[in-house]
Amino acid sequence: MSHHRFWGFIKDPIYGYIRLTDVERSIIDTPSVQRLRRIRQLAGAEFVYPAANHTRFEHVLGAMYLGGVVSDSLPVDLSPDEKQKVRLAALLHDVGHAPFSHLFEPLLLKYLGRNHEDMSRWIISESALSDVIAEQGFDAKEISGLAVGKPEKSTKPFLGQIISGSFDVDKMDFVVRDSYHTGAGYGAVDVFRLIYTMDVVDGNLAVDITALPTLESLILARFESFRAIYFHRTCRGVQMMLLKALDAARDDLQILDAKTPDEYMEWDDYTVWSKLQTNPHSRDIMSDISARKLLKCAYEKTFYAKDELVSSVFTNENVRVKLEEEIASKAKIPSADIGIDVPSLPSVPYHYAMNIGPIDIPVFSKTRSGEKVPQKIGELSRVVDVLQGFMNIIRVYTKEQYREEVSHAAERVLGEAPLSNVLSY
Amino acid sequence: MSHHRFWGFIKDPIYGYIRLTDVERSIIDTPSVQRLRRIRQLAGAEFVYPAANHTRFEHVLGAMYLGGVVSDSLPVDLSPDEKQKVRLAALLHDVGHAPFSHLFEPLLLKYLGRNHEDMSRWIISESALSDVIAEQGFDAKEISGLAVGKPEKSTKPFLGQIISGSFDVDKMDFVVRDSYHTGAGYGAVDVFRLIYTMDVVDGNLAVDITALPTLESLILARFESFRAIYFHRTCRGVQMMLLKALDAARDDLQILDAKTPDEYMEWDDYTVWSKLQTNPHSRDIMSDISARKLLKCAYEKTFYAKDELVSSVFTNENVRVKLEEEIASKAKIPSADIGIDVPSLPSVPYHYAMNIGPIDIPVFSKTRSGEKVPQKIGELSRVVDVLQGFMNIIRVYTKEQYREEVSHAAERVLGEAPLSNVLSY
Amino acid sequence: MSHHRFWGFIKDPIYGYIRLTDVERSIIDTPSVQRLRRIRQLAGAEFVYPAANHTRFEHVLGAMYLGGVVSDSLPVDLSPDEKQKVRLAALLHDVGHAPFSHLFEPLLLKYLGRNHEDMSRWIISESALSDVIAEQGFDAKEISGLAVGKPEKSTKPFLGQIISGSFDVDKMDFVVRDSYHTGAGYGAVDVFRLIYTMDVVDGNLAVDITALPTLESLILARFESFRAIYFHRTCRGVQMMLLKALDAARDDLQILDAKTPDEYMEWDDYTVWSKLQTNPHSRDIMSDISARKLLKCAYEKTFYAKDELVSSVFTNENVRVKLEEEIASKAKIPSADIGIDVPSLPSVPYHYAMNIGPIDIPVFSKTRSGEKVPQKIGELSRVVDVLQGFMNIIRVYTKEQYREEVSHAAERVLGEAPLSNVLSY
Amino acid sequence: MSHHRFWGFIKDPIYGYIRLTDVERSIIDTPSVQRLRRIRQLAGAEFVYPAANHTRFEHVLGAMYLGGVVSDSLPVDLSPDEKQKVRLAALLHDVGHAPFSHLFEPLLLKYLGRNHEDMSRWIISESALSDVIAEQGFDAKEISGLAVGKPEKSTKPFLGQIISGSFDVDKMDFVVRDSYHTGAGYGAVDVFRLIYTMDVVDGNLAVDITALPTLESLILARFESFRAIYFHRTCRGVQMMLLKALDAARDDLQILDAKTPDEYMEWDDYTVWSKLQTNPHSRDIMSDISARKLLKCAYEKTFYAKDELVSSVFTNENVRVKLEEEIASKAKIPSADIGIDVPSLPSVPYHYAMNIGPIDIPVFSKTRSGEKVPQKIGELSRVVDVLQGFMNIIRVYTKEQYREEVSHAAERVLGEAPLSNVLSY
Repeated sequence: MSHHRFWGFIKDPIYGYIRLTDVERSIIDTPSVQRLRRIRQLAGAEFVYPAANHTRFEHVLGAMYLGGVVSDSLPVDLSPDEKQKVRLAALLHDVGHAPFSHLFEPLLLKYLGRNHEDMSRWIISESALSDVIAEQGFDAKEISGLAVGKPEKSTKPFLGQIISGSFDVDKMDFVVRDSYHTGAGYGAVDVFRLIYTMDVVDGNLAVDITALPTLESLILARFESFRAIYFHRTCRGVQMMLLKALDAARDDLQILDAKTPDEYMEWDDYTVWSKLQTNPHSRDIMSDISARKLLKCAYEKTFYAKDELVSSVFTNENVRVKLEEEIASKAKIPSADIGIDVPSLPSVPYHYAMNIGPIDIPVFSKTRSGEKVPQKIGELSRVVDVLQGFMNIIRVYTKEQYREEVSHAAERVLGEAPLSNVLSY
Repeated sequence: MSHHRFWGFIKDPIYGYIRLTDVERSIIDTPSVQRLRRIRQLAGAEFVYPAANHTRFEHVLGAMYLGGVVSDSLPVDLSPDEKQKVRLAALLHDVGHAPFSHLFEPLLLKYLGRNHEDMSRWIISESALSDVIAEQGFDAKEISGLAVGKPEKSTKPFLGQIISGSFDVDKMDFVVRDSYHTGAGYGAVDVFRLIYTMDVVDGNLAVDITALPTLESLILARFESFRAIYFHRTCRGVQMMLLKALDAARDDLQILDAKTPDEYMEWDDYTVWSKLQTNPHSRDIMSDISARKLLKCAYEKTFYAKDELVSSVFTNENVRVKLEEEIASKAKIPSADIGIDVPSLPSVPYHYAMNIGPIDIPVFSKTRSGEKVPQKIGELSRVVDVLQGFMNIIRVYTKEQYREEVSHAAERVLGEAPLSNVLSY
Repeated sequence: MSHHRFWGFIKDPIYGYIRLTDVERSIIDTPSVQRLRRIRQLAGAEFVYPAANHTRFEHVLGAMYLGGVVSDSLPVDLSPDEKQKVRLAALLHDVGHAPFSHLFEPLLLKYLGRNHEDMSRWIISESALSDVIAEQGFDAKEISGLAVGKPEKSTKPFLGQIISGSFDVDKMDFVVRDSYHTGAGYGAVDVFRLIYTMDVVDGNLAVDITALPTLESLILARFESFRAIYFHRTCRGVQMMLLKALDAARDDLQILDAKTPDEYMEWDDYTVWSKLQTNPHSRDIMSDISARKLLKCAYEKTFYAKDELVSSVFTNENVRVKLEEEIASKAKIPSADIGIDVPSLPSVPYHYAMNIGPIDIPVFSKTRSGEKVPQKIGELSRVVDVLQGFMNIIRVYTKEQYREEVSHAAERVLGEAPLSNVLSY
Repeated sequence: MSHHRFWGFIKDPIYGYIRLTDVERSIIDTPSVQRLRRIRQLAGAEFVYPAANHTRFEHVLGAMYLGGVVSDSLPVDLSPDEKQKVRLAALLHDVGHAPFSHLFEPLLLKYLGRNHEDMSRWIISESALSDVIAEQGFDAKEISGLAVGKPEKSTKPFLGQIISGSFDVDKMDFVVRDSYHTGAGYGAVDVFRLIYTMDVVDGNLAVDITALPTLESLILARFESFRAIYFHRTCRGVQMMLLKALDAARDDLQILDAKTPDEYMEWDDYTVWSKLQTNPHSRDIMSDISARKLLKCAYEKTFYAKDELVSSVFTNENVRVKLEEEIASKAKIPSADIGIDVPSLPSVPYHYAMNIGPIDIPVFSKTRSGEKVPQKIGELSRVVDVLQGFMNIIRVYTKEQYREEVSHAAERVLGEAPLSNVLSY
């Protein structure tokens, strides 16, 4: 079909050259996809890793590329059309992201009742983008399902798992790309080894156990990336400030009333940032960010085992507010100057936090006769087993001048915190 | 002195770890320097190299780092204070950049009568930044001179040349960094070899001729970067559109009336972009950019030798306008839809264009007795000799639908163009 | 002192430039150190990773470099002389290696009653090298102790730990370097982050717990390197063949009767290989290697928990021989064609196997008042805790034509083996 | 056909994974190809770049890989069999190399009357390797022609040019690989951009002029590699010593009387080195090399323009000998202690030296109608034009103790030399 014709290359610092078809080019050139150029991949991380200015745009191109590599190398028969669909779904999987990516997620949920994946489906199937997809001979609704890992026709569930699953192209790309741009170094994972050992077992995507070392590397890389980038004390501090500013300037942010995909997509990092800077309720916070007067972490505690009490406490916003007030009262400062952060808390959520444990990674081994036998990875790899475990961090943030008091007050309320606060930019 | 105390590290993907002193940290945390986070290094280049989203902020940190390496490795005695000044000057050398970096330069000149280096001096010596510099025990005026390569006390001209000269830390950093983020690959230059062979000859910074291969690599890398990134046909197309939008929205851009450094620094890529999107005179152009409906290059000709006639013609804006009208008339389209681009033209200027030729690269050789004898690089390296030569490109841009007619019309007016227009994203 | 004078640079693909002092140059230029150019770092690994041809020479230069970085960055006062000693010790730590590095170790033990560290001490303190060290103003005996991590004067034990300890410059260099040359990808560890957080606690080298993510990366990298490189099924197959050849040609290998360091050092990979190729008892094995007719692994089982029985069985060579005979008898092939390999077995030993568990990694945390409090890493990091665990692999090798029978026979003798044998070069 | 079946992957640090077919595996596993594991790519270079220990084996795998990429991406129809032939030819193109690669070339010519390409053809078409090729269904004679760039059937000359031409897979691989292992940094060339713009014009391989920047980078990289690696003063010094040793031990080196490919292939770096160390006529030289007592360059002069007189002088061995005697006499030392080195001299030849100028690089441009029009690269690129130029170096080597006298004597005989002798390891 003519629309699979090779159009040209895009240069990418990670993979070298990404080949595009005419179809892909048409879709990349829509405002929906181009908008991702103005949505940073890791809002807040640049305050620790100055070079982490990459955007969702590069990421979705990379995910599309890897989607193609997986489709081409899987030892099953896929038609050119199926391969094209996988690439398109990977390309569009993040099209619904709000400004500042995951940071905005709780506001989406609170005001629009949707998460970014819902937004992706909405945009793919009900905006001008849908028309372009249709013009190119594809079914926008089908692509929208595939883009969030839920293909309509369940006969080939592995197609959806390429986009969203235990070792999908989204994760593989972001682990490598975030590492490249931050320089953090955890993400030098050999994703191609993983891909070249993928197969389909009972309709599901699975990895040959011979790639176990690579799988362990990927899982550790993801784990360390959470700790060193996404959950970094300073990154989270900036994110809490931005969230406060967004809440304060809410009336100026019509994105939260968006009735159509197009109204929603008028907003990006640039427009939101500019609004926050001028809105009278948020501009002081933005001035502080601009002068790098950041909230400081006065208390931090990490849990590697599920603490039932703590967990139930922190899923309830009222309890959190109460604790903030209690700490404030003990520290004798206004409770508005206290912020408790738990990465999985709805108030400062982080998409990934929910599934940090790669619980059901499907692996198989091949018998001498070539049969593929599913294996339980937890039994084969103690590293994976451990990293599947629970990790939660509780932090208390406050202004620099209150740090000492809040630290002590928090220890009285939340228990002793073992480790020092260290220098890191 | 206490202010040279080590404060901590910043992680950089190029150099690994950048050590900061307390002084540096204080200055980095000012709004003036933090603002550089919102000014892209290569505005427009992301339309060809999607990952080229790095900012002036990372670049100035890198320049500061290299400034320190040069200071430490030069075989001359420099005091801790002198070394700190060099690092500060490198850190601040780009603090005056307008939104979209060099793209904005002609508007600065036209409306404020200054270029970005003038702005840097202004900001360093007459804004809140000056106070912070003074608090840290340094003379803001002295730093401001050094930051543009013009140290006040001429006894050590080489100190200024570290910041601005034939192989200064600015060039070394941007060649390597732009290559890293674009993936363009020309910039894998061994800058440390260059630095380790630097010395001071008659008060000036010079490179030992034994590093000639590296010098040639750097110069070729810079040359290819111009061709493949800065002067790329598509990048320039986007830049012309942005310039048009800026001109159109001029009344909404108070930056062009800035009376103080602070008024000037209120503007960055985010705020300007947001203005352009909503201003009624520029928003159509911005919509086109957002849908990647870019101006197309209908004609292109490169000159490697100085063509006196062409040169004199193109430095005169009236002549350019006349030529645009002539082509438009021959192509039978409105002359507003024709744009002639010559990289060194004031109307679409590019800071670098003026000194692409590394005319006076100071090199020396050592005699057996250790004496340093200045050499003429042009005589030792035919590669450098050639690359010092003149390069100019003339292009005619128009809307996609007029491409064919304009191409023919331009050939009639400007002469035949040898090469095809090729696919490149 | 004049002998610490800077002499020049060596280019290294990992670290860029390695600065040398005059002292170092004198010592590097001795035949003892130059001989390491002809001793491969990973004998056998090139049969899986064709580019893994790096030598001990590059490795010791790298270790010396890192030794310098650690000495310079430790926040304790070290004299220039102490720093020079650390660098020299790192440079010389592997000078005692036999041909094919670790592969030769059991023969050293069997015939000379020494391991490679004993040989290093012997060579450093009793060969022509000692004289050069003395000429340069250092005490060869002192250096020899430091080179194996046992400094004579126990007041500063951390100096020895820089060379040989839980995260010494030896390990840091080989993890990164082996990864670079194999392309295996596990070793992209940020060793500088580790180094910059090192400190001395109670006289011992320790790492600030803030670098935990990097520590975990290093430990996983080391673990994966064992599995993917050092213990790789095919690498071990080649190594078993080489060991067989060495045993067979023993009478021609006067190295095993070496009375002096100089007699010992006459032998390197080149001379041993040439001997093995011509010796009538070994040349058939060498022909097989040269035609890549390698021993095949017919059975493999990995233990992640200490199996007392298995362990006691395999430390006794007689038991191993008995098992080989039993398998051979069941498979109805000559027992000479069966080889049981257990990485920690003395017969095919691997230096690393003994301390794969980084048992006592000293870490500390800093209190707010700056006090350094030792921590137990196992309690802070479940990843480290797991990776400290036991890993042992038992494999049965045989000729390709007997693979099937031996596989079945081994399963009857040693129990079922869970995983398939996979393609890998 | 079954023999094109995918067999598995080999890991390569440059390209990641190299896919092998069953055919390729069979041929790689022959002793002829495996022998290349023991022939270093850059004999002598390790004395300047300690990590440059890579072998011809990795290089031919890399060339095979690139051969496949070119075959797959050329916009012409090639059958699976043709593509397989190209890959095999690339794999086998260096199979005829003597120990120490190019260093041995003059001895091959002098004693066997063949160069290494003749040896490759001989081995491919008349050894056990031929049988394996035939078993796999290919014509050994046809492959042997293709392997040296001279395909028998001249209807598709471009197939041969993929292996041996202006920008063949041999050059592309060695420029990148030598840079990786030396760390020299000149070779970070984007060879994939070059490959993706290749096409066939009038039966010949040509590059689209849009890739001119990359072409210039490749040519500069090659040029700098000559200067910084292959022609490096110290590398050449080691090579001269090795050549002297080879000449002296000639009677022990039966390779020079080889009557069959198999006799020839018994020799590799390991066996030759071992012979030279024990042969009474060469062992002193080898001791000097082992103690890094290298010949020193006492005089050096570079010519960038063809000097007719010098040129004619140096192609005549007698003239060279005379000059050596003249210098020796003036310096009052034995003439045996003088060695004149001119890279293109038959006595110390260097394969590359003959065609450093990439004289006839075929490039084309595409017209709007898609027609491919050949272009003259010299007219389009002044960089290429300059680098096509002549470069010759004359050096006089002697023992360290005679350096001063020889330097003066050489200046009197050969004219003044402009530059100092610099430190480099």
